[in-house]
Order: sequence, then structure tokens, then C-alpha cells
Amino acid sequence: MFVLVNLKAYPCDPVAVANAAEAVATEHDSDVAVAPQAAQIQSVTETGVETWAQHVSPVEHGSHTGSTLAESTADAGAVGTLLNHSEHRLKLADIDASLDAAERAGLSTVVCANNPDQIAAVAALGPDAVAVEPPELIGTGTPVSQADPDIVRDAVAAAERVDPAVDVYCGAGISTGDDVAAAEELGADGVLLASGVAKADDPRAALESLVEY
Amino acid sequence: MFVLVNLKAYPCDPVAVANAAEAVATEHDSDVAVAPQAAQIQSVTETGVETWAQHVSPVEHGSHTGSTLAESTADAGAVGTLLNHSEHRLKLADIDASLDAAERAGLSTVVCANNPDQIAAVAALGPDAVAVEPPELIGTGTPVSQADPDIVRDAVAAAERVDPAVDVYCGAGISTGDDVAAAEELGADGVLLASGVAKADDPRAALESLVEY
Amino acid sequence: MFVLVNLKAYPCDPVAVANAAEAVATEHDSDVAVAPQAAQIQSVTETGVETWAQHVSPVEHGSHTGSTLAESTADAGAVGTLLNHSEHRLKLADIDASLDAAERAGLSTVVCANNPDQIAAVAALGPDAVAVEPPELIGTGTPVSQADPDIVRDAVAAAERVDPAVDVYCGAGISTGDDVAAAEELGADGVLLASGVAKADDPRAALESLVEY
Amino acid sequence: MFVLVNLKAYPCDPVAVANAAEAVATEHDSDVAVAPQAAQIQSVTETGVETWAQHVSPVEHGSHTGSTLAESTADAGAVGTLLNHSEHRLKLADIDASLDAAERAGLSTVVCANNPDQIAAVAALGPDAVAVEPPELIGTGTPVSQADPDIVRDAVAAAERVDPAVDVYCGAGISTGDDVAAAEELGADGVLLASGVAKADDPRAALESLVEY
Repeated sequence: MFVLVNLKAYPCDPVAVANAAEAVATEHDSDVAVAPQAAQIQSVTETGVETWAQHVSPVEHGSHTGSTLAESTADAGAVGTLLNHSEHRLKLADIDASLDAAERAGLSTVVCANNPDQIAAVAALGPDAVAVEPPELIGTGTPVSQADPDIVRDAVAAAERVDPAVDVYCGAGISTGDDVAAAEELGADGVLLASGVAKADDPRAALESLVEY
Repeated sequence: MFVLVNLKAYPCDPVAVANAAEAVATEHDSDVAVAPQAAQIQSVTETGVETWAQHVSPVEHGSHTGSTLAESTADAGAVGTLLNHSEHRLKLADIDASLDAAERAGLSTVVCANNPDQIAAVAALGPDAVAVEPPELIGTGTPVSQADPDIVRDAVAAAERVDPAVDVYCGAGISTGDDVAAAEELGADGVLLASGVAKADDPRAALESLVEY
Repeated sequence: MFVLVNLKAYPCDPVAVANAAEAVATEHDSDVAVAPQAAQIQSVTETGVETWAQHVSPVEHGSHTGSTLAESTADAGAVGTLLNHSEHRLKLADIDASLDAAERAGLSTVVCANNPDQIAAVAALGPDAVAVEPPELIGTGTPVSQADPDIVRDAVAAAERVDPAVDVYCGAGISTGDDVAAAEELGADGVLLASGVAKADDPRAALESLVEY
Repeated sequence: MFVLVNLKAYPCDPVAVANAAEAVATEHDSDVAVAPQAAQIQSVTETGVETWAQHVSPVEHGSHTGSTLAESTADAGAVGTLLNHSEHRLKLADIDASLDAAERAGLSTVVCANNPDQIAAVAALGPDAVAVEPPELIGTGTPVSQADPDIVRDAVAAAERVDPAVDVYCGAGISTGDDVAAAEELGADGVLLASGVAKADDPRAALESLVEY
């Protein structure tokens, strides 16, 4: 199970979380990545942890002020990017163009969506993975696997039907190893989480409980 | 005259331009800053050059994925930020909130606008500076000071009327020292430029011609 | 005092509210207008009431699908338009262009904003009027004149300083004649309201209480 | 073949085009509809022609100023709506919510997209129809069926694969009956066009040539 920790715009120390993630990943031979603010990608990368962007813009090199060029995140050390997170919804045409941008820059991609129909839609655009995150559960501490397991099952089935090569991650409300185990049980290939680690008093302990499921 | 070099999403080497800018600023005792992609702020800062963000989001610490938190750019080394560039227009309420965010993070601010009425509008929000950039001249190589000097004069007068403490910069089409001198003549306190330096074969020579006006 | 009733996307009968508004305006020789959905402008106009648009797009005639062309609302009978309502915030450059569009189509304009600084900003763009609506009070039933009278006073002063020809309206929480009187006392030239009339069991009685202040 | 004439924000007389469309539809027993600005839906409906909206917002009844409530277009007489036109791109989540809104209001739906991958994506959201409109061909007079027939074939195949119940329309560059015949040949169930009729000197003649293919 892939564990992607989204630091959002939280007031945590991104390097401290990154160090914890890197230690846990190494010790447990787990696949853990951290997605900081774009301006912190370089310092997070320097910890050795797998680093992701939270978003890349649907642009190529050129006159685009204030965008997040996919290549600039890759140059800083990112190896993947989230797209269309519920806190940063994109136009459909821009999801498509941002996927092109990410591929051009060699970034892996996870496109978020909030129900099985939308999961089918984004799977049709050929990302590496999709993540189902019912907006009403984000940040609640109630895992989607518990609150509405059918959404995960239906998302897995929807992605499978459209493109079996697309992985499915499960987001919203994940905070314990049991939540990770439940997500895996439902067919997910990974989990997205944020506050459960980024706001934890002890991010390393939080991560350990996640990977020791 | 303040010289702010916006690297946009150009395929230039941001560190090379930053080194050139730092050398020219030191040698000529000039005020030169460089605004790279957010993901390159840290590496540009490490050259010692004054570093700016191209944009900051109107958010505080919290659940905001894919935003550009003002504090994150300051943590990476930025000391100022552009806002409302013609390639990244903002809602009026967001310019206001982004100015609050920048102030909170200790960043200087330049708000762009494309005519004297809009300059008066953004000056009323209390930024450190405003920049008049008629969109039709951006990237043309024809300086606004030449194409339409009245726009600069009227922008200076408009900002002065609303808030005399607000500096006025002049953008669009600046590429030579003569353009900088003309902007100063018209009452501007600085210039914004991009392709004239970022796309130059020799960015250092381009910057020297700008500061030796 | 001008009374502008914004019907938003409420499930009320726009023609019934319009008839009530027209009757009250005639009987009390008051200045009352109704702003329905664009698709209802024609039927509302047919009641004889002064009819406003809730928004017009910053476009001219041309290839703009799904826009609200200023001329199309005028052709249907609108004589004015709201702009930049807190439920439909616009980019600064688009407020400017939408004001041009409204002027071109002969529509009066009220630009909303949520604090005195933003009121100064929009007044600088030359609208007929501005409306101060602190977002936190919209729909609360607590009038801004009571919750925070200084915001209204400061908004009136800010607009006066920038352009004395610009009227100032007061929105958010207006529901009674006392609220209208208080707004007038604070220097406002009119009021914007919505739920107080549109959701009233008896819109005519609600309007009468407003104009008989 | 369904023929949907999008009047965009063109300076044509919407009622004149609607009368022409209604006459041609009746005379040739063809399926012709007209999509005017929201403010003209009522007057276009009064001609008897099948009337569509150019867009509906992803909102329900409530506090949404300046939106286009699906119910308001239906109340004015619309029986269908375009969504996600290349001139009005929507966020993926908003396409989904606007489809819900349209269904709630009893409107038929056509979701636009600009390539086969995006066609598969929007087909997964369950609209009545999708329309493939390569942006580079819109308004050119060069029909997609001629410029790039594979796009139409691939779009038809993509929609079929995702949901065989979804019709496929063909847009961009349609102006003659031959273009309609070519679209049908490639598997399309209808055509979208705009300038070919709305800007024609004789809209009725233009429509006749389209339905007499």
C-alpha cells in the first residue's frame, strides 16, 4: 500500500515530517511519500523522502506567471503530483492538460475525485492512479472505508472497468493502520492522508501505526 | 529604480539568471530582484539575490491543497511577491486577502493592473507598490514608456491621488536602459521585466544595460 | 432610498415578487427594483417593475457561450446590473470590463464589495454605485447598520474620497424599515436585500415595511 | 440527425433565427433546436422552436447570485442545455453537479469535450449526449469530419465503450449539409453549429442546406 502524506498549507515543519516519513519508509520497507508546498519541495527532497507536488498547472514552458510548471517541481526533486484535489478542483480540460504536463516532466500522477462516476471519468484520461475522497469526510477522522465502504468498492470497480492499469487510492478520514487495512481489503492500492500525520504530535508514531497494519 | 525580473515559466536556468542578477546588483549597487517559480525560490535564494514569489494565495495556514501559502514562500527565502499579474488575474477580494497574507508573512507586494483606473483600485488596497502593464504590450519589446507614455503618467497620478505611499512600477516591453530611464522620467519607481532578461543569450549583459541607464 | 431586491436562485415566484414590488413602488412613490435570474428578466419586466440583472459578463458580442451578455439583459428589459456580488466574485480586470459592457448596453451598475478598502477600489472604476456587504452578515437578518455601523460610515467616506459621484448602498442583513432608516442615517443612498423579501410569506408586506421607514 | 444552433453572444436577432429554425424543422420534419442567451430563452421559446440553454450552473435553489439555475431556464421554456463548451469550460466536479441540476429540472444534456479521452470522461458522468469539438476548428468553417475524421470516429468509439446510451454529436466547423452527412457517416447522432447559421445572411437558407443533406 502506497501512503501519500499531503501537507496542504498546514503549519507543520515539512522537513520534520519528511524525516519521519523517510525513517519509517526505510525501517518498514514501506512506500511513503510526502507532498509539501511547492516552495518546500527542495528542502523536503533533501531528506531523501519520496516527494510529490500538490498540484501542477496545465501549462508548458512560456509566459505563465504564478503557475506551477511541472518541470519546475521535477527540477526541485518531485517525482509525482496530485491533481484535482477537492481543495483545488480543475476544469476537465485542465486535468487532461496537467496530466500531459506531468508526463512530460516524468511525474507520477494521482487524480482525485469524489464519487465513482467521477473516478471513471478521470480514469479515462490515463493517470497512473485515481483517489476517491468524498469531500464530506475530508479531515473528519472518519475513514471512507468505514463511513461508506461501497464508495471505495464502486470506485475500484469503476476504474477497473475504464482502465485496469490505473491504481486506486483511498482518501478522506484515514488515520490508523486499521483504516489502511480496510482500504486494502476494499481493493485500494494506497491511501492519501493529511491531518492524521501532518497535525499529529508525533508524526513518526502516526506513520508507524499506518504502515504496521 | 527597482528592477524586478520575472522568470515566469520560461525554460531558462533560474540559478544562472539569479547569479547574474546578484553580480550586477552588487557591482552597480543596484536594486535587482528575481522572481522564479515557487519550487525554485530556495535555490534562487541560495545565490544571495533578492528573491520574490510570482504569486501567493489568499489563504492562511490550513486545509488548502495546491495553494501557494505566503509563509511557505517566505520560509524558502522570498522577501516579496507579485500579485494579479496579467497572466494570473485575481478576484478583487482575493487581491485584498493575498495582500493580508503577504503582510502576515513579511513579504513586500507589487500588484499589477493594466490601466490607470485599475491602478487606482489596487492602490486603494494598500500594497507597497503597483505595476502598470498594458496587456497588449507584454512580451512585445515595445516599452509602454514609448508606446503610450500617458498610461504611465496617468498611473503615477492615479496612485499618488489614492495613496502617495504606494510606489509605481512600469512593466511591459522593457528591455533596455533607455526604457528604464524613460520610465523614471515618467515618474516610475521601478520596472518589471521578463523576457528581456530571462530569454537573453547573456542575462548579465542584459541586466547591465538596464542598470547603467 | 433605492431598494434593490435580489432574488438570487431562490425558489420564489419572481413574477409574484415583481408584482408586489411594482405595487409598493407605485403606491409609495418609492424606488424599488427586482433582480431575478437572467432567464426571468423578460417575465419580470412585463410586470412593469424596474428590473436588474444579477450579473453581466465582461464580454462584447462574439463567440462567448454561456456568458451573460450585457446587451442581452438590456434587450430583455433590464436597466441595471449587480456586479461582484459576494456569491459571484469577479477578477478586478473583469469588474472593469463588465462595467464597460454595462455602460455600452445602457445599464446602471452597482458593484459589491465587503469592506471599505474594497469599496474605495471599486469606486475607482467609475460605477454608478457601490454596495458594502460584509459577507459574514449576508442572510443573517442582522443588519450591517447595527452589527457594524462603522463599516457603512467608512464605506461612505471611502467612496466619497475616491469619487463623490458614486452612490453607496448598504447590504447584508436588511429586513425592516428601521434597517433602511439606519442605513440612510449612516449616509447610504440605498439598500440591497434578498431573503427579507424573496423568502417572506408576504413579499408585499415586507416591502411596505421597508419603504415606510 | 439533431441540429443544435448555438447563438453564443452573437449580434444576431435570436427570434429571427428561432423563427427560421422552427419553419425549417416543421417543413422538413427535422430535429432543430436553438440555444440563445439565458435572457432570450423566453422570447425564443415563444416562436415554438425547441430551445436550449447554453449553460446551467451546478447549484440548487438557494443563495447563488448571478448563477444560471437549471430550473430558471426550464421555467423560461428551455428543454435542454449545453455544458462545458470550449468557451465555458467547467471543473469536472461542476460538470457532474450541473448534470444533476439539469436532470432535476428535466433538461436534456450535451456535454462538450475536445478529444476522445475527454469524451470518454464526460460519457462516464451519464449525460444524454456528448459533443466532440476540437477547439482549433471552432469557427473556422473547416468541419472536423474533414479536418480530422479520426477524432469523430474515436469519440464515437470512446463514448460507446463507456456508455452505449450516450449520443455523440459533432461540432466545430459544420456549415453545410455535406458536413452533416459526413458526421452521420462517421457515427455521429447530431451536429452542433453556431456561426454557420447565426452569422448567415439568410439563416433559413443556411438551415435548409443543413437538413437537406
